[in-house]
Amino acid sequence: MVEIWRGERLESLHHGHAVICDASGAVVESWGNPGAVIYPRSSCKMIQALPLLESGAGAGLSTERLALACASHQGGRGHVEAVERWLADMGLGEASLRCGAHEPADREERNRLICTGDSACQLHNNCSGKHAGFVMLNRHLGGDAEYVAPDHPVQRAVRATFEEVTGEDSPGYGIDGCSAPNFACTVAGLGRAMAAFACATEGGDRRQQAMVRLRDAMMLHPEMVAGEGRACTELMRAMRGAAAIKTGADAVFVAILPRQKLGIALKIADGGTRGAEAAIVALLARAGVLDAGHPAALKRLGGPQTNWRGKVTGETRLAAGFPG
Amino acid sequence: MVEIWRGERLESLHHGHAVICDASGAVVESWGNPGAVIYPRSSCKMIQALPLLESGAGAGLSTERLALACASHQGGRGHVEAVERWLADMGLGEASLRCGAHEPADREERNRLICTGDSACQLHNNCSGKHAGFVMLNRHLGGDAEYVAPDHPVQRAVRATFEEVTGEDSPGYGIDGCSAPNFACTVAGLGRAMAAFACATEGGDRRQQAMVRLRDAMMLHPEMVAGEGRACTELMRAMRGAAAIKTGADAVFVAILPRQKLGIALKIADGGTRGAEAAIVALLARAGVLDAGHPAALKRLGGPQTNWRGKVTGETRLAAGFPG
Repeated sequence: MVEIWRGERLESLHHGHAVICDASGAVVESWGNPGAVIYPRSSCKMIQALPLLESGAGAGLSTERLALACASHQGGRGHVEAVERWLADMGLGEASLRCGAHEPADREERNRLICTGDSACQLHNNCSGKHAGFVMLNRHLGGDAEYVAPDHPVQRAVRATFEEVTGEDSPGYGIDGCSAPNFACTVAGLGRAMAAFACATEGGDRRQQAMVRLRDAMMLHPEMVAGEGRACTELMRAMRGAAAIKTGADAVFVAILPRQKLGIALKIADGGTRGAEAAIVALLARAGVLDAGHPAALKRLGGPQTNWRGKVTGETRLAAGFPG
Repeated sequence: MVEIWRGERLESLHHGHAVICDASGAVVESWGNPGAVIYPRSSCKMIQALPLLESGAGAGLSTERLALACASHQGGRGHVEAVERWLADMGLGEASLRCGAHEPADREERNRLICTGDSACQLHNNCSGKHAGFVMLNRHLGGDAEYVAPDHPVQRAVRATFEEVTGEDSPGYGIDGCSAPNFACTVAGLGRAMAAFACATEGGDRRQQAMVRLRDAMMLHPEMVAGEGRACTELMRAMRGAAAIKTGADAVFVAILPRQKLGIALKIADGGTRGAEAAIVALLARAGVLDAGHPAALKRLGGPQTNWRGKVTGETRLAAGFPG
């Protein structure tokens, strides 16, 4: 799918699987193996957030909080404080989370922690918004505090929803970086779910209404879904509401195209994020929702790659035949 | 070659090319395509350092400085100060370097820079030791200050040496992260060069003497070649002088095995570093120079991978048939 060039020579190569699904859930175009079973990782956060809305637990949530529920954020002050306020509004704190702590990717907040000697907490975890959503759903369902256990009511609800929107029985789960179970599906199943998000209307059923709220919240708050410099944020800004997109660890990327009523899902087989970012740029540009010449696109595909002295070293190109 | 497992399922997969070469320079074993043309990137720093010694320019250099010339270091205080002293001994400073500056990977030094408001300088660049070697060679050759220009006497000397030890005419070069030209070769050619380093003896010719000094310096100062936590440092410590190894960007790894008189070179086709680290662990263990049960080995192959809460998420395994 994607070639990494240095000078006049191909240096590295990313293979992968991708699908485009339509309103019927059918795969209308595919590359690689649409039946490949993958872990969607964080690319399925909008699916994991559906039970929060469908149950009514998240009825009054702001669009900002809905975007955070679908986010892999940078752990910037804005993200951390928003999740903290969300938990506080439930009368809870950081200790109710089960995502673990890691150093934030946001440089300003990272530097602040380093210089004040503060430790990163679970609020900084890129998944803390998703976990706040789990906590809120859990309060509604009345489960115990260990909401990441695979047989916990929260995760049982997530699994049932996941299987319905992918149209598949999940063959199993892996434990994600944030300790939640991550259910496996095919690339086609993930694309089918994204097409359902794309086709959902406000006049539809409870699920469709939830899908509309989540996808619109992501497009409304690109800075909440990831952060400055990141692919999801920069590309959603560039597309100005034409698509909601989300990355997942180990090189998954999905896109929801409401105007075209299409869903996209892709996985780079080797897990290389640069490959997934270039591939989604290619598919979004081909679908007409992203200008391939926009700086956010060129940074990931086709533009010059530079080194520490600003010298051009090479570029990222599409492999022959992709996307065709 | 290498499989990334999460739970009960394969999540990602790394393909690659690898060779083992013997004293004659012949490929005695190979996987993938030994004729694949690659950029060795930083894995060939010991080759790039040969002209420094063969010319006599680096005659009196300490083993520590020789290790630094072959290093992709972390930019820790020890690395930075050692390179600074080396330049000072030539009556020069940081401004003589042409590698560019980047934030050091060493956390202590990184945090110090952040909290004092200091900027990272070229001494922090992981290639600053190699560049100090280039500067020293340049002083001997009398070239102009722009020693990274591909037609500069320093780089002409590097290219000639590189072609001799790989036994190939290089088909060209790319500009590396540190702005120096990086000459392309086949995986077999890179393995051949490593075998030459492995077979070199102190009683040999000028080149062999230079090879012995560089390879021994690397094994004597694993902490100078990379830094705490890094594969080259941890694995060389674990092997206690049985092999000199070096990583290169975009998933290249080489090994020099003096006792076995063997050279190893490998490239993961997608550029995934985790794949290269697992593959070199497998080949070193198979060659009998690394205990596969050593913590430094298990961290990269076969041991449990954990998440932010210390929960086991999966493991890195060898693909069927590799290394056999």
